[in-house]
Amino acid sequence: MNIAPKNQHSAITTGPLPASSKVYRPGILHPDIRVPMREIMLHPTSGEPPVTVYDSSGPYTETAETIGIERGLPRIRARWLAACSDLEVYDGRHVKPEDNGFATGDRLTPEFPIRNRPRRAINGKAVTQLAYARAGVITPEMEFVAIRENIGRRMPEQALGRDGESFGAHIPDYVTPEFVRQEIASGRAIIPANINHPELEPMIIGRNFLVKINANIGNSAVTSSMEEEVDKMVWAIRWGADTVMDLSTGRNIHNIRDWIIRNAPVPIGTVPLYQALEKVGGIAEDLTWEVYRDTLIEQAEQGVDYFTIHAGVRLHYIPLTVDRVTGIVSRGGSIMAKWCLHHHKESFLYEHFEEICDICRAYDVSFSLGDGLRPGSIADANDAAQFAELETLGELTRIAWARDCQVMIEGPGHVPMHKIKENMDKQLKTCGEAPFYTLGPLTTDIAPGYDHITSGIGAAMIGWFGTAMLCYVTPKEHLGLPDRDDVKVGVITYKIAAHAADLAKGHPAAQVRDDALSRARFEFRWEDQFNLSLDPDTARSMHDETLPKEAHKVAHFCSMCGPKFCSMRISHDIRTEAQKEGLAAMAERFREGGQLYMPLGGTIETKPTGA
Amino acid sequence: MNIAPKNQHSAITTGPLPASSKVYRPGILHPDIRVPMREIMLHPTSGEPPVTVYDSSGPYTETAETIGIERGLPRIRARWLAACSDLEVYDGRHVKPEDNGFATGDRLTPEFPIRNRPRRAINGKAVTQLAYARAGVITPEMEFVAIRENIGRRMPEQALGRDGESFGAHIPDYVTPEFVRQEIASGRAIIPANINHPELEPMIIGRNFLVKINANIGNSAVTSSMEEEVDKMVWAIRWGADTVMDLSTGRNIHNIRDWIIRNAPVPIGTVPLYQALEKVGGIAEDLTWEVYRDTLIEQAEQGVDYFTIHAGVRLHYIPLTVDRVTGIVSRGGSIMAKWCLHHHKESFLYEHFEEICDICRAYDVSFSLGDGLRPGSIADANDAAQFAELETLGELTRIAWARDCQVMIEGPGHVPMHKIKENMDKQLKTCGEAPFYTLGPLTTDIAPGYDHITSGIGAAMIGWFGTAMLCYVTPKEHLGLPDRDDVKVGVITYKIAAHAADLAKGHPAAQVRDDALSRARFEFRWEDQFNLSLDPDTARSMHDETLPKEAHKVAHFCSMCGPKFCSMRISHDIRTEAQKEGLAAMAERFREGGQLYMPLGGTIETKPTGA
Repeated sequence: MNIAPKNQHSAITTGPLPASSKVYRPGILHPDIRVPMREIMLHPTSGEPPVTVYDSSGPYTETAETIGIERGLPRIRARWLAACSDLEVYDGRHVKPEDNGFATGDRLTPEFPIRNRPRRAINGKAVTQLAYARAGVITPEMEFVAIRENIGRRMPEQALGRDGESFGAHIPDYVTPEFVRQEIASGRAIIPANINHPELEPMIIGRNFLVKINANIGNSAVTSSMEEEVDKMVWAIRWGADTVMDLSTGRNIHNIRDWIIRNAPVPIGTVPLYQALEKVGGIAEDLTWEVYRDTLIEQAEQGVDYFTIHAGVRLHYIPLTVDRVTGIVSRGGSIMAKWCLHHHKESFLYEHFEEICDICRAYDVSFSLGDGLRPGSIADANDAAQFAELETLGELTRIAWARDCQVMIEGPGHVPMHKIKENMDKQLKTCGEAPFYTLGPLTTDIAPGYDHITSGIGAAMIGWFGTAMLCYVTPKEHLGLPDRDDVKVGVITYKIAAHAADLAKGHPAAQVRDDALSRARFEFRWEDQFNLSLDPDTARSMHDETLPKEAHKVAHFCSMCGPKFCSMRISHDIRTEAQKEGLAAMAERFREGGQLYMPLGGTIETKPTGA
Repeated sequence: MNIAPKNQHSAITTGPLPASSKVYRPGILHPDIRVPMREIMLHPTSGEPPVTVYDSSGPYTETAETIGIERGLPRIRARWLAACSDLEVYDGRHVKPEDNGFATGDRLTPEFPIRNRPRRAINGKAVTQLAYARAGVITPEMEFVAIRENIGRRMPEQALGRDGESFGAHIPDYVTPEFVRQEIASGRAIIPANINHPELEPMIIGRNFLVKINANIGNSAVTSSMEEEVDKMVWAIRWGADTVMDLSTGRNIHNIRDWIIRNAPVPIGTVPLYQALEKVGGIAEDLTWEVYRDTLIEQAEQGVDYFTIHAGVRLHYIPLTVDRVTGIVSRGGSIMAKWCLHHHKESFLYEHFEEICDICRAYDVSFSLGDGLRPGSIADANDAAQFAELETLGELTRIAWARDCQVMIEGPGHVPMHKIKENMDKQLKTCGEAPFYTLGPLTTDIAPGYDHITSGIGAAMIGWFGTAMLCYVTPKEHLGLPDRDDVKVGVITYKIAAHAADLAKGHPAAQVRDDALSRARFEFRWEDQFNLSLDPDTARSMHDETLPKEAHKVAHFCSMCGPKFCSMRISHDIRTEAQKEGLAAMAERFREGGQLYMPLGGTIETKPTGA
């Protein structure tokens, strides 16, 4: 194992983004809170303050921080958790050989070097954010996300002028801890934050907050090392992933997950069924409630923040998929379908759902109710199987809520544009406004290799309609395992979709960054344009392909039009002229009732109104 | 000049796409018509016929064709045009030194080797598709596009079951030549087809037809050779561009354009103002109507199929742009604004618009009325300047129509999602349903380097709402000149957007390809999946990165999940089981009133209804 210190070659990507520094905002109710944000410095000629942006990247983008993945991240929630009298520390489950697929010797990924004893709720207590919210308690996590969602803006003196169509979402001008508490209490939002994940920087998922994105990582048959997986996670959050799902299969699942969680400042989600299946040698029929239950506890103790549970795949829904073009495309869904069919029994996930709730309630693992029957093609979108399962997810939501568990609902998949809104509307209605978490959806099937784009279109739209978190799709979807570049392209594409959704919903802070970047563009502040973009490195290198010189970074033109044709430069000339000629005043008069429409005819008015 | 024959190294990309062959459908009214389509062969195990797709690539994707760009493409329309008694052949304008920016010697791109005398309308005649459509004539071009739009499908026996939301578009089950004539006559569609572009394979742009895409090429200050530009055009149409705009600036504009048009099977559009500006040394103030008029005739004689004319930028609108975040971002718009302001006079394009119509009418050059005041940032979307200009574009549309000219309207730009539909609705209303042709729109400003994606989202949406043609945006937008890879990514992204729009509108033939590809995916016909995709090369190479062997092309799994976890494989198991157990029959009963929702409770129904 070779963990290089920061300044040597290391597989882990660290260091700040260009022109950026991290700032931390304190709490008021909980003064020891330090909420991270990123400030992007602008060129002095701009006369503008730094632009503050939401920052999910954790300590890895610190200048000062020395990362060593064998130590794990600072345990920032440890003190809050220690102060909680509802929790107890206990010995925890022992790691079993099957947890790592019976890997031994060189093939066994080493255990994470530091072992902390896990916490759980004292018998019968609910320690979820939902339970505290319902009890009127504002937890440190709630204040943390409230500060985070404001992205550094202050409470406005009066209601902001708002621009957007929110489709029933109610995004406040300013997010207070009490607002967060109410949203959690109502079930409209969740803070996935396992009590055994003290390294977490809390974040919130809900329709009345910024749209979030998830990136999937995970090793597979093709082995990838623990360090590679940690770096994939770090890489994904560097570009903006808000949560990361570890979808590992194969050997070493337990140990790799430990390395990931101990180094993750974002919530980690899993599909426990994958590991359970490994434990029974990959034979779906051999799965049992006992193996599954043990896996839930194993992962809850490690600190997994949310579980995808495909409890909505019921035996009598399976026949509905038989005439589909692409059958069942969810891995979890197909495994459960096979189990149900083989045993001719109702799904053990459905039958034991209340017990699952009890586990989640004791560790505050959030539910991500899986859509095992989601459509895998345009032809299967919005069909009977999909919507039948959604009804069951609504039923399960109410059961989980009754036990104080936090819930979000997974959604499709492949859906043509005209059927997207129906998904959102039905989900809100059926699941009592629990947050929706969708995969894309892909708006056509014909572009493998570009499914980040086919799905980015659907993601932006469903995000606008109210989806709280968008699960990314990479260019490799349907074709292979995403590499580092694919992960980055997937994350950036989904940051675009999420941000486009925030803008369209009328989020009060969303347009700040667009406006700052557009001003930079108009004023030929090339460096500022790069630095304000979602991917400064790519923007800069594309510019430099044709105009590499430093002098070109202050040039009042670019390679597309050259100096003679530059519309922006001409616009500046016009503006200068306007100042001379008082055009601004003219514009004012014009707006106050000047003639907008002058018909073409014999007498052409060649001067502006009133000039 | 080095024009290599096809089998040697050549800068021009030729040869068929994987598993594809070109087929040609004849006309009935005009039996000499040969309408190109592409047939994608599927694996024999599929038991399915080839999938026919729309094909804009011209003879370059023939197997037999020997391309030599010095000869130009076959002049397939020559006979139709020769038969037209409204046309005359004449000597045409002489090429002037300023047409090529006074380039001489080595710096002068050679003339295209073959000179054909141009045609024009006999004095006063209208030779536009619109004029013929109004006169009740079905031209060969109209029959050609009718056959083309059906993509090989036959007239259905009865009305198809339709799935989609068309927002008022009326796409027929089957496109007849008479339907095309009516759409042209009403102004709702255009066939850009200059009488001096006999190499053209006609295509139609209109809301009731397949959504089309345009790719921009063109040299710039950074010189690119004639051969490079021709290849960029060939490359763009290989991947699906329906029209190509030559936006060249700098020297050699005239000669390069000749090479492009003589080798272009798709309509070529230009912004004549760019060349006119070159002729006056790049000084906007020095532009005159005479120089501009001469440029229009020069380009009309060469065979340019549509002109972007920024005649909507009127003097009294300019003050409306002064307080914008990004001023005027259209090159043509800013040039005209500067001219208007300098001379304090109404735009000569607006004042001479009727004369421009007379030129277009004599050659059948279609108008693409430019949106010189389109928004260049989210902040400026849907503002007074933009919509004021749109009113003028509506006025100009009516003037052009009165003179039998074909018209489409250019649209934005940068628009957040919630403001996109307003653009479409206003355009339809203001411009009498003339086809809309939009650039994106970009749905956020914050992702330079990824503006194919920020705009692909907006393009898919506005295409769904009714935009007839989408102008592509490449990853280099705002940063530099697109190279070959950028052109391809831009085209594929826009093919995705256009196709997603066709699906959502409910185009009766759109889903055929999605379904064929999804069936291939479900049946592990990897080769078919690659071949049916928009970019087979990329799909194949991404797959092969992890599973390179030929054996993996028939493997019933992929590298993402590996064999154990493959949901599709499990779905097949389920289907097999279903056949044994008669689940299909059960599903039927279930659909006929089986219980969809069984509450979780004491007694769990563990068997499907009726089993």
